[in-house]
Amino acid sequence: MYVLAINFKTYKTSYGSRAVSIAREADLIAREYGGLVRMILLPPATEIVRVANAVSYSSVFAQHVDPVDEGAYTGHITAEMVKEAGAVGVMINHSERRVRLDEISFILGKARKLGLETLVCADTPEVAAAVSVLNPSMLAIEPPELIGTGIPVSKAKPEVVTDTVSKVRELNKEVTILTGAGITTGDDVAAAIRLGTQGVLVASAVMKAQDPAKVIKEMAESITKTTT
Amino acid sequence: MYVLAINFKTYKTSYGSRAVSIAREADLIAREYGGLVRMILLPPATEIVRVANAVSYSSVFAQHVDPVDEGAYTGHITAEMVKEAGAVGVMINHSERRVRLDEISFILGKARKLGLETLVCADTPEVAAAVSVLNPSMLAIEPPELIGTGIPVSKAKPEVVTDTVSKVRELNKEVTILTGAGITTGDDVAAAIRLGTQGVLVASAVMKAQDPAKVIKEMAESITKTTT
Amino acid sequence: MYVLAINFKTYKTSYGSRAVSIAREADLIAREYGGLVRMILLPPATEIVRVANAVSYSSVFAQHVDPVDEGAYTGHITAEMVKEAGAVGVMINHSERRVRLDEISFILGKARKLGLETLVCADTPEVAAAVSVLNPSMLAIEPPELIGTGIPVSKAKPEVVTDTVSKVRELNKEVTILTGAGITTGDDVAAAIRLGTQGVLVASAVMKAQDPAKVIKEMAESITKTTT
Amino acid sequence: MYVLAINFKTYKTSYGSRAVSIAREADLIAREYGGLVRMILLPPATEIVRVANAVSYSSVFAQHVDPVDEGAYTGHITAEMVKEAGAVGVMINHSERRVRLDEISFILGKARKLGLETLVCADTPEVAAAVSVLNPSMLAIEPPELIGTGIPVSKAKPEVVTDTVSKVRELNKEVTILTGAGITTGDDVAAAIRLGTQGVLVASAVMKAQDPAKVIKEMAESITKTTT
Repeated sequence: MYVLAINFKTYKTSYGSRAVSIAREADLIAREYGGLVRMILLPPATEIVRVANAVSYSSVFAQHVDPVDEGAYTGHITAEMVKEAGAVGVMINHSERRVRLDEISFILGKARKLGLETLVCADTPEVAAAVSVLNPSMLAIEPPELIGTGIPVSKAKPEVVTDTVSKVRELNKEVTILTGAGITTGDDVAAAIRLGTQGVLVASAVMKAQDPAKVIKEMAESITKTTT
Repeated sequence: MYVLAINFKTYKTSYGSRAVSIAREADLIAREYGGLVRMILLPPATEIVRVANAVSYSSVFAQHVDPVDEGAYTGHITAEMVKEAGAVGVMINHSERRVRLDEISFILGKARKLGLETLVCADTPEVAAAVSVLNPSMLAIEPPELIGTGIPVSKAKPEVVTDTVSKVRELNKEVTILTGAGITTGDDVAAAIRLGTQGVLVASAVMKAQDPAKVIKEMAESITKTTT
Repeated sequence: MYVLAINFKTYKTSYGSRAVSIAREADLIAREYGGLVRMILLPPATEIVRVANAVSYSSVFAQHVDPVDEGAYTGHITAEMVKEAGAVGVMINHSERRVRLDEISFILGKARKLGLETLVCADTPEVAAAVSVLNPSMLAIEPPELIGTGIPVSKAKPEVVTDTVSKVRELNKEVTILTGAGITTGDDVAAAIRLGTQGVLVASAVMKAQDPAKVIKEMAESITKTTT
Repeated sequence: MYVLAINFKTYKTSYGSRAVSIAREADLIAREYGGLVRMILLPPATEIVRVANAVSYSSVFAQHVDPVDEGAYTGHITAEMVKEAGAVGVMINHSERRVRLDEISFILGKARKLGLETLVCADTPEVAAAVSVLNPSMLAIEPPELIGTGIPVSKAKPEVVTDTVSKVRELNKEVTILTGAGITTGDDVAAAIRLGTQGVLVASAVMKAQDPAKVIKEMAESITKTTT
């Protein structure tokens, strides 16, 4: 099953009723394409509860968790908390929220114990390879210079994606590899899959769209056509 | 009105149904002592929605917000988000989550525009004085070495509290000053008030208590007796 | 005596023989304008020893020190070390190397004990005012958006400078106030002084100049003309 | 050739004439054991110039470099700078100065271009394995909880060392593996080598010794005996 992961980030549409509404629309599409497309929604920490309550066919992941256990850590977000709030997975190391290598390892170990899935972002094929050794459930290759540009990595730097696939597959046969950065259209999604990855990580293309549902549907449709 | 602020931190009791249950108990006490004690509850980001929905007589503050506006800031918590989730204020610069001076200033300015109250923690009288120049609604003096020890700053280092009061009052007549670190009993609360502060910031004494409601009630009672 | 502070940053000219050569040229000008202009040179940590050995009429300051004491702090730069290497002062909180408020306070206290002068950067009049309460020897007002632009704050935002002077002087009569960000010519230096500050903090205008000595001399000359 | 790497950290002996004196003593021992022991000295940034000038048979490495190129990076230490100051290599990611995964990758790439050797620290076998994929010249396994304790990892947790060797060797045949944390005596050094690593990374055992030369000599002697 191919992945369509939507990072809500912290846009004006990322929280409150607009966020819940986008989540609901995405969830309807997830139902429609169930079995072919796996929809992953990544709301901000404050919205995990509401988004998780609003969806049935999508998986909710946190955008980030801090590398700490329960205890005296004012202002931190733990893996336990996001799980309790309704998340079934955590993303870490997005280019807008990098973490240290030892922290990646710590969080992956912890998420595994809690039964949470994991998605780790990487900026280069080399970093993706290093990450793959730590056995996350998924990794996303995202050259930071393309994030939010609308220029898809699959077009601008396809070799970054193919290099990632070949370097990672030498070390890890199982990790799901996603393409991120600049993914805007169904064509970009198709290209990402043809380059050998198992889905996409998108953000602004959906969250800043006039009609988010239309964009999500186009992407889901493209996954379906490309993979069946 | 004197303040009883409860920092939930990230303990086992800080999230999920246990957090909501402590919030409800605190809220009943807030109702009972209304007009005399202002109850401020600081749940973790993921629980603001649930805690805010559960209470009527208490104010909900975030434990931290990040110094960013809306936009592409994966994994961050903005002031807009915590407001939308139900918070009426934000705490920043707790010793477990310090921020930079320019970030304190940025967040205070932003919170003001959004109509959020602000509470800034300080580790020394000098830092408290510097903070007071930036006009937060409240500040808390908390020597980090006493946090979580059960040794109240009002007993172990009363001069830190009185120094803070005198240094801050020279610069800022209006800011509410709270005493934090090691506050465990009603007596500690009374001492904090007698030293010239307008309330307390507590955490483990409530969150790790066998019977949180009993501790909260004792503290509220002590505020009432000391100030009337 | 008015201050001409040159932040070497980490340019190609900032280290090795080019750095020593710029330092020597600045020092000759310091000798020429002695009594009227105080020359402060801020080389990177690795070059403090060589720059301090190369000059006689200038003061060497570190660009940054870490908020730690002696001990097990691999990769850190302590105030003790920069003093031993030949620095007589430390700058902290530059916009390219911000530190937390509690760390500013810690470093100022420590520098004072070691007999080092201190220069703290601030991005706004409010932050400058807060800093002034902590009693550094000097502070520099530098709106980050103008740093390195060649657009002097004294021209683009003179009210930032005058606001800083008035807010700081209410709280602290003694701290030396410098103007930074975009200072490029002798005229910019003159404007900074006329706005009520006691000198300038410059970087790219000198370090990236074809003829650094010419720029330094023009600035020193401008200080002399404006202040006598 | 087996490695004896001495991390000067930021102790009272780590800078100034005491640092140079320890470096000279180490260098004499490096001469004596030349061909059998490779001596690597890691002084703080401010002392690289003086230590590099003082030694002839040892390699000088920086304790840390920042992940930036030349430019406007006030207060940062670049790889170019430490090279110019006399270092032939850089250590990064020590437990007291962790860096992010993307930064490790960036610094390794940059150091390679500049012809600098690299030493990356890791806290667990898993992290060491991930690091080894990025092809540093050397890596050091150092469980942080043992650093500075005098309890050698080779005795307290030998399985951490052997696990590291087996995990790393599956992925990288060439990287030099060092054992760190708690190495205090010649016996500890011998144990580290017998567990399959190619040397040790030490700090307090030398820097806080009454007679540093004696400790260094005992360690060099132990390497020689164990490996010939």
